[in-house]
Amino acid sequence: MKNDIKLKNLKGTVDYLPTEQLKRDRVFSILKKTFEKYGFLPLDSSILCPFELLASKYAGGAEILKEVYKLKDQGDRDIGLRYDLTVPFSKVIAANQNLSLPFRRYEIGKVFRDGPVKLGRMREFYQCDIDVCGVKGRFVEVEFFLLTLEVFEQLNLDIEVKWNNRKYLSGLIELAGVEQSLVPKTILTIDKLEKIGQQQVEKELVDLGLSKNQIENIFKLTTLDPSEVDDCGIEILREGISEVLEVMSLIKELGIDDKCIFSSTLARGLEIYTGTVWEIFDRTGKISSSLGGGGRYDKIIGKFIDDGNEYPSVGMSFGIEPISVLLENNEKKSNIDVLIFAFENNANVLKIAKELRDGGLNVIIDYKNTRLKKSLDYANNEKIPYVAILGEDEIKANKIMLKNMNDSTQNLISINEIFNYIK
Amino acid sequence: MKNDIKLKNLKGTVDYLPTEQLKRDRVFSILKKTFEKYGFLPLDSSILCPFELLASKYAGGAEILKEVYKLKDQGDRDIGLRYDLTVPFSKVIAANQNLSLPFRRYEIGKVFRDGPVKLGRMREFYQCDIDVCGVKGRFVEVEFFLLTLEVFEQLNLDIEVKWNNRKYLSGLIELAGVEQSLVPKTILTIDKLEKIGQQQVEKELVDLGLSKNQIENIFKLTTLDPSEVDDCGIEILREGISEVLEVMSLIKELGIDDKCIFSSTLARGLEIYTGTVWEIFDRTGKISSSLGGGGRYDKIIGKFIDDGNEYPSVGMSFGIEPISVLLENNEKKSNIDVLIFAFENNANVLKIAKELRDGGLNVIIDYKNTRLKKSLDYANNEKIPYVAILGEDEIKANKIMLKNMNDSTQNLISINEIFNYIK
Repeated sequence: MKNDIKLKNLKGTVDYLPTEQLKRDRVFSILKKTFEKYGFLPLDSSILCPFELLASKYAGGAEILKEVYKLKDQGDRDIGLRYDLTVPFSKVIAANQNLSLPFRRYEIGKVFRDGPVKLGRMREFYQCDIDVCGVKGRFVEVEFFLLTLEVFEQLNLDIEVKWNNRKYLSGLIELAGVEQSLVPKTILTIDKLEKIGQQQVEKELVDLGLSKNQIENIFKLTTLDPSEVDDCGIEILREGISEVLEVMSLIKELGIDDKCIFSSTLARGLEIYTGTVWEIFDRTGKISSSLGGGGRYDKIIGKFIDDGNEYPSVGMSFGIEPISVLLENNEKKSNIDVLIFAFENNANVLKIAKELRDGGLNVIIDYKNTRLKKSLDYANNEKIPYVAILGEDEIKANKIMLKNMNDSTQNLISINEIFNYIK
Repeated sequence: MKNDIKLKNLKGTVDYLPTEQLKRDRVFSILKKTFEKYGFLPLDSSILCPFELLASKYAGGAEILKEVYKLKDQGDRDIGLRYDLTVPFSKVIAANQNLSLPFRRYEIGKVFRDGPVKLGRMREFYQCDIDVCGVKGRFVEVEFFLLTLEVFEQLNLDIEVKWNNRKYLSGLIELAGVEQSLVPKTILTIDKLEKIGQQQVEKELVDLGLSKNQIENIFKLTTLDPSEVDDCGIEILREGISEVLEVMSLIKELGIDDKCIFSSTLARGLEIYTGTVWEIFDRTGKISSSLGGGGRYDKIIGKFIDDGNEYPSVGMSFGIEPISVLLENNEKKSNIDVLIFAFENNANVLKIAKELRDGGLNVIIDYKNTRLKKSLDYANNEKIPYVAILGEDEIKANKIMLKNMNDSTQNLISINEIFNYIK
């Protein structure tokens, strides 16, 4: 049976069993609550999409299209499984012209990519996204930083937000003498600095066609404090400097500059970003890849909708997989507070269980009620902290013999007392 | 743009916008919390499944297989999208032989069926399931009744649980003289009584090959109180009577017999059920179809796993679609408590927003801060109950001008006061 092929999960898909799922649920719930505190509202978009939507010019592009799961339905329609939550977000804005802007939404849902599987890279996985459409200025990005810090405070994880500005980085590269057509690829190469090191980046920049001098200039310029940079009349650099200084001033006033670190070589891959970008990193060094990130993308929804309007937007994503890894601990903990063992399962047992549940406890009843020993073993195995033993005498006296599974003590207490005892 | 085909959702799929989704989230959250109080633990199983798993003999059967969305991945594997949460549940038990039984799990997730679309019948929809595997006896079914009542109490919906026992109904039909081979189809026909009426049922039973006399007997027998029925030595009827009386006695002692109504003609479709079955109905008559239901299925997981062991199980499902319809109300309500309007968005505004959020309020900031009138219009439109107006004087005095959008009053109050004011 164990080797039965039908029972094997497909590569890149996972079933999360309760112990793991309880941990993940805690993260989802903290995200959800914090998103709502910051005024993001829930959206639940469809997984099945017209293939045409996913393939539209200003959606994810050719690279990601290779990884779309394609199928046909009985009506012979071409269908794809969504590969992110941003295309559905754009679609919802386009299809619901009566939405008030700014429109803030969060969505936590599964997306699908038929690509290479590696650590932290599944074929079916969750994205946890917040986006706001219809807002200019830098203020909102700083609000995203605050939200991010709040999420990780609640998770009790030590992180930092590294941030930059795409206009600023583009401007610096132009200032270094690189011709405009090479700027986007130069950005993507510099973005790999932390991953592959300066030497390798320099090599790739040479391959790209940059001169030694240009490369030297870039590395010199990126070490400067933005307030010291002379824009030399380059418009995008002028805007970049001003935006960076604005964010710097806000985070300093808010006292979060120790956690929000300006990093002039960060670019956050995707070409869609047009302003501030950021990524979240684990400070303990346990995980080197980013725990999430985001940025401003002012053009893409407008191009997608193509109605002549601007849709300046900011969005970010939290990675449930790396966050779960950081929360890993070996101690299995149960979500169940009490296991009831009675010598006979009658209506009284259900009444007592109901009282405990009404008081906020998670309670299960041993259905077999044959041997107390077995019940205690089950509780031990499942790490349930308390077993309530109900004999006839106890039920008559409206009392419970409560056994603490950690220290093996037991006490005869009334049902009202139990809540103080356990909480 | 509006007619752009790529922006149309596929037939049978829906995007739930925030107003609708907030309502649905409330239901999900009540379900989740109640499931956990009763000791069910979360499971998150994969949507992508090997087609072979979905097609296995003891999974859903030929009828449902026609509705499975099929696809191939880049590795040419045959894949299907899950059509329910019970097959994944069986798979997880089979694939994880180290799970302690009884194993209680809940799963709230999307399933997919490429079938006819009608009211309350989508192609991509949520199932909200609880199941427990590895438990005999009737006690557990009554616990499911208690859980069900608790869910709908919290939703403030007036419902009743109609229940029956498949052994009892089978036994009565045998007692009426119907030959065994006709019993399953007779059950499915009788199950339609509420939907199509007695006359139509009688007609279909005649078509099935039952005699006038047998049909008369069935309808006579199903009106009897189970305690008055003579089993005439029919084993399945003997068991059925005993099981029904056991449940009756428990629900009477628990005082829930006014809401859990024995209904001797209820069968709950699916042939997998082997004991108690139940369905939930709206008592206000607004919705006639069931809001959920469940039953005992002792054979199917054992047959599926095929390792010679028994896996007696009980499970039920809640229908988010009909429940949401019952919760429908026309008043749009926001999830946001306060909209902050400042004449300048500086760090102080973010600090005040943080104080309000730390106190448990959901807060958004007007990013444009151009005209108060526009901000008030936005709040009105979005039904945000309070607007906090922050001028320089207010910020200096650490105060807020709080405008109540319902009665248009406004008060200058300190930030600490605001929580008493709003909650």
